[in-house]
Amino acid sequence: MRHMIFGESHGPVIGVTLSGVPAGLALDTAALQRQLDRRAPGKDPTATARKESDVAHVVSGLFEGKTTGAPLTILIQNSDQHSGDYDALRYTPRPSHGDYPGFVASKGCQDHRGGGHFSGRLTAPLVAAGAVARQLLAQRGVCVAAHIAIIDGEYDAHFDTQPALEAASQKAFPVLDDAAGEKMRALILDAKENGDSVGGAVECAVFGLPAGLGAPDFGQNTEGIFAQHLFAIPAVKAVEFGTGTSFAYTRGSEANDPLTLQDGKVTAATNNAGGINGGITNGMPLVFTTTFRPTPSISLPQKTVDLRTGAEVDLVIKGRHDPCIVPRAVPVVEAAAALATCELLGI
Amino acid sequence: MRHMIFGESHGPVIGVTLSGVPAGLALDTAALQRQLDRRAPGKDPTATARKESDVAHVVSGLFEGKTTGAPLTILIQNSDQHSGDYDALRYTPRPSHGDYPGFVASKGCQDHRGGGHFSGRLTAPLVAAGAVARQLLAQRGVCVAAHIAIIDGEYDAHFDTQPALEAASQKAFPVLDDAAGEKMRALILDAKENGDSVGGAVECAVFGLPAGLGAPDFGQNTEGIFAQHLFAIPAVKAVEFGTGTSFAYTRGSEANDPLTLQDGKVTAATNNAGGINGGITNGMPLVFTTTFRPTPSISLPQKTVDLRTGAEVDLVIKGRHDPCIVPRAVPVVEAAAALATCELLGI
Amino acid sequence: MRHMIFGESHGPVIGVTLSGVPAGLALDTAALQRQLDRRAPGKDPTATARKESDVAHVVSGLFEGKTTGAPLTILIQNSDQHSGDYDALRYTPRPSHGDYPGFVASKGCQDHRGGGHFSGRLTAPLVAAGAVARQLLAQRGVCVAAHIAIIDGEYDAHFDTQPALEAASQKAFPVLDDAAGEKMRALILDAKENGDSVGGAVECAVFGLPAGLGAPDFGQNTEGIFAQHLFAIPAVKAVEFGTGTSFAYTRGSEANDPLTLQDGKVTAATNNAGGINGGITNGMPLVFTTTFRPTPSISLPQKTVDLRTGAEVDLVIKGRHDPCIVPRAVPVVEAAAALATCELLGI
Amino acid sequence: MRHMIFGESHGPVIGVTLSGVPAGLALDTAALQRQLDRRAPGKDPTATARKESDVAHVVSGLFEGKTTGAPLTILIQNSDQHSGDYDALRYTPRPSHGDYPGFVASKGCQDHRGGGHFSGRLTAPLVAAGAVARQLLAQRGVCVAAHIAIIDGEYDAHFDTQPALEAASQKAFPVLDDAAGEKMRALILDAKENGDSVGGAVECAVFGLPAGLGAPDFGQNTEGIFAQHLFAIPAVKAVEFGTGTSFAYTRGSEANDPLTLQDGKVTAATNNAGGINGGITNGMPLVFTTTFRPTPSISLPQKTVDLRTGAEVDLVIKGRHDPCIVPRAVPVVEAAAALATCELLGI
Repeated sequence: MRHMIFGESHGPVIGVTLSGVPAGLALDTAALQRQLDRRAPGKDPTATARKESDVAHVVSGLFEGKTTGAPLTILIQNSDQHSGDYDALRYTPRPSHGDYPGFVASKGCQDHRGGGHFSGRLTAPLVAAGAVARQLLAQRGVCVAAHIAIIDGEYDAHFDTQPALEAASQKAFPVLDDAAGEKMRALILDAKENGDSVGGAVECAVFGLPAGLGAPDFGQNTEGIFAQHLFAIPAVKAVEFGTGTSFAYTRGSEANDPLTLQDGKVTAATNNAGGINGGITNGMPLVFTTTFRPTPSISLPQKTVDLRTGAEVDLVIKGRHDPCIVPRAVPVVEAAAALATCELLGI
Repeated sequence: MRHMIFGESHGPVIGVTLSGVPAGLALDTAALQRQLDRRAPGKDPTATARKESDVAHVVSGLFEGKTTGAPLTILIQNSDQHSGDYDALRYTPRPSHGDYPGFVASKGCQDHRGGGHFSGRLTAPLVAAGAVARQLLAQRGVCVAAHIAIIDGEYDAHFDTQPALEAASQKAFPVLDDAAGEKMRALILDAKENGDSVGGAVECAVFGLPAGLGAPDFGQNTEGIFAQHLFAIPAVKAVEFGTGTSFAYTRGSEANDPLTLQDGKVTAATNNAGGINGGITNGMPLVFTTTFRPTPSISLPQKTVDLRTGAEVDLVIKGRHDPCIVPRAVPVVEAAAALATCELLGI
Repeated sequence: MRHMIFGESHGPVIGVTLSGVPAGLALDTAALQRQLDRRAPGKDPTATARKESDVAHVVSGLFEGKTTGAPLTILIQNSDQHSGDYDALRYTPRPSHGDYPGFVASKGCQDHRGGGHFSGRLTAPLVAAGAVARQLLAQRGVCVAAHIAIIDGEYDAHFDTQPALEAASQKAFPVLDDAAGEKMRALILDAKENGDSVGGAVECAVFGLPAGLGAPDFGQNTEGIFAQHLFAIPAVKAVEFGTGTSFAYTRGSEANDPLTLQDGKVTAATNNAGGINGGITNGMPLVFTTTFRPTPSISLPQKTVDLRTGAEVDLVIKGRHDPCIVPRAVPVVEAAAALATCELLGI
Repeated sequence: MRHMIFGESHGPVIGVTLSGVPAGLALDTAALQRQLDRRAPGKDPTATARKESDVAHVVSGLFEGKTTGAPLTILIQNSDQHSGDYDALRYTPRPSHGDYPGFVASKGCQDHRGGGHFSGRLTAPLVAAGAVARQLLAQRGVCVAAHIAIIDGEYDAHFDTQPALEAASQKAFPVLDDAAGEKMRALILDAKENGDSVGGAVECAVFGLPAGLGAPDFGQNTEGIFAQHLFAIPAVKAVEFGTGTSFAYTRGSEANDPLTLQDGKVTAATNNAGGINGGITNGMPLVFTTTFRPTPSISLPQKTVDLRTGAEVDLVIKGRHDPCIVPRAVPVVEAAAALATCELLGI
């Protein structure tokens, strides 16, 4: 299964084509829509005021409710666009946005309105594609769930069990520990009030994978497959598996996961490896953390350069922006993980 | 350019084939060999006692000293193998090694001797392939250099300039701050004496890249391309770009890199983004950090399971192992980065 | 540049997404539409009565008339569908159609209406994608043109020059020799009157390619790249380069193309090789012939099997079908060739 | 499973790496060697006098006789090289060889000795890779067999049954009709005596494939997958499926294959389609024909250009060459078909 996402924030439509979808899946389009709704803004005062209807239309590859095996295309109409907000930004790239490198890569031809193809809005078709992947995985007993791990330095609890994580992932503000969640929300609102933004991280787990998937080699190793999907999410700047960057502070005797027999199955007593050894799944939950940089769109004045004149100028960004994209990123990370898991399983 | 690495630790030969190598490169095989020598063990008391000759033989794709454009294969003969050391491990997988998932993936058929195809020894052909890539990059003024960033929690200094990092990368113990390096070596030797191992991280930079390479999309974004190459290195468990995981603790006003004009060129005043915005290079040095888990091979007794009997058993690993692979991983990270950079440049 | 075609004959929409389109192309959408019009039915009494509006809408990747480098999606709305015509065929596969293998591959879930995703209608987005490719090629002085070579055993003349072939390709019935064309049309109409269909072949040339493109190796050789694009056109059953199958009747002394110097450039005096030696372009026009089987949809009674009952049944196909798809296939072959040429050029 | 072939005719070694080989195959290396022996020259007076030992050494991916799933590399040492024969040809490209386009593509750096990487000798590792593929296919009841269909206009009989084709394929001169074979041999020897060469064609069938493999789409359709593998064989200039180019002379009523029920299975009464409809296998034998151009190396004087001086010169090629490569191409076509079949089956 391969996917290709297309569209721009202020174009007529955004969408995704999935090729290689196995035939015969009774696609639950209501469940697909629920995934999009999880991602939609406007549910929480911490999010952007932009309303995104995000109604998914499957226009190919589906017949009488079942996938046909032909390429499956999902379209989402765009609406509620304030393109005028962006004209002032056309030649004054927003710091740490894709604006400047996008200007160079597109030879000055990019659609600058609302971030164009760089917009976080393009995560809507990603969630839609991931929703198809999730339904394929569910047939195999595989489930993906995530929660907010960190926002602006404030940590959520670790998850103990699959049901606990699944429950947390479905919350409007998806944390395990609601008290920690309240602190995170306060940090986001504080940033918002100050015209600033905050970063954070999402921890995600894939449950139900058998041991033996993947390979150590380039292009086939489990970490590499997941990382490629995860870094395609805008604003992701780090991907860690299991203990992740903390391995750099650890000794082997602490880091190693002893092997044991549980219900007749070889199991690791701990899961520092995040379910992967030598690039291959070991049968434990596959666990990884994805770090999101703070939204670069802040209202505070910033320095930039006018690309027409070369003059250094002060920039104040208008428009409606998430002070923190991490809460809405939870279903996006799950979607990318679902697509990665399909690739790993050879679906 | 694509590469395929083959071989096993105790097989007759290991090697790599590179296809799509541009024709006409006057390959400096002595420089290629020097890269392999940087990786070779036995230079430092902190490393494994295993001697690896690692002499690279280019057996195809090279004629009269120049690349022909045909697939270029490099072979390295194996030697100094103590295969007997590994027989005891055949059915008692070492915790946190590829042994158990490799057993499952290979249906019990893997070459268990010396880690087989999972062995860190397979990074030798990776370094050889990377050496070819480096010479192609040098023609375009692009240079890759790395240093040890962390070992067991002990930090090296940050790099200020390209010459400083290049100089550090060539040291026998590649750090910027030799005093920090001494502390790191002491931690490694302490772990070694205690039958333990330590993890760490390598920071790497690619200098000389133009702005505008890559794309935000899956399969084309700069971070994803690099991550896929880096996670193919054994023991890598995290990849971060620029400020990386610390973005989760940061506000946008601190994280954003103001844009400015320097020598008539749009430049970022800081480089928190690690040279990448929106998946595209911005003309700043591309900077990333790669975390290595502690070597799972430790002498301390560990718990595992006998795959024949299902019994839980105590395991003591014999053989010669690096208590810390991070110092030798520096040229390996550079090699993977050089291959990723070639992919990014469309070489 | 990669493309993904989606949609079904009687679905709401068909389309294509092109990723990796170079930025900055001032896309001539009128020229794109003209390519679609060349393919559209209803221009000639020999073609199907089905009217296809085939208006292309570029919905992404284009901004202010120029390509942005982001994925470019072209949508074509469907209309004028007589889905009811096909209900009788749902479980009685038409001989030599994709019906039966499609039934198996889709586990019985394919969209059977109008051939679904197997329909020749899906060549409309292919022509649209090819139209983008042609405009990119024109920037490099590369031009693709084709003509009908054979219909039902009746041959067109060979082309002498690029202008002659280009002129022929633009005709309503694209042949070099209009007298031969009249005979072909008579054969088609005769088949139509008899409820039958006829096969044929399209000869195509790519002009303006430099020598040295491609490689002998799998996945990179020129013939293989073209063949993969050409066989993706429905009903194509043979692809030949230069002298093609007639090489099996030939001696080397006749088949070899002597090398000579023309205008200071190494040139072949003849072009039996079709512009390719050793999988690499030699600077001569790249010439190939593509054979199309007769349309399998004929009105004459045929034998098939009822997939529900297993009974052998007589089948009479209703609906509107081309008795010969070859005339309309000329722009389709050109489109596939344009995409193949872009792949060869690394666009 | 992917493969990468490397080496040059007069280099130290030629070989192939197969990645993605399923683990657990008990590789019959003697059977692999027998495939190489079928291709080896010197068995028949019609073939080249060059002796090729062609002993295959599996140097990775195999342990205790079974595939491990790690990349499997096969090396074949070169020997019996008369490199001096080729020095005169270095700057006077042989007409219709890869010499001139190879010169351009390699920027003048190609290994010209014995055709270098363009040599037919590179089909030895292809046969070795195909031998691995055949053993994987045999596990699934799939068998590939071929015969000489045409040499210099002389036709072999058509095959009736799988056993008849399998028996013919194993002959020293692999034809069904030995009388036709004698005429072919006479034509080859006549060409040889006259310093000339002849072309021909190989017909191949894949038996035992289920219906439903492949898809109509680019990159997934059965014909395209096979064609890409077949055109990677040197000297192949046409690929036809089933009735092939003769479809251009045929009406639908003759070309269509009626469907019938045989042993409870939907079957085609004829096989004009060559086992493929709509790009998908239909359960009939997959049948295709591959045309080989006459060997361009002939002893007769030819015209070429001296690349150093630009002067037109007369060329007489020395060295030992096959006057017809078609007999030795039979196992090569089978090997390419076996690899294509593995790709189709998702192996």
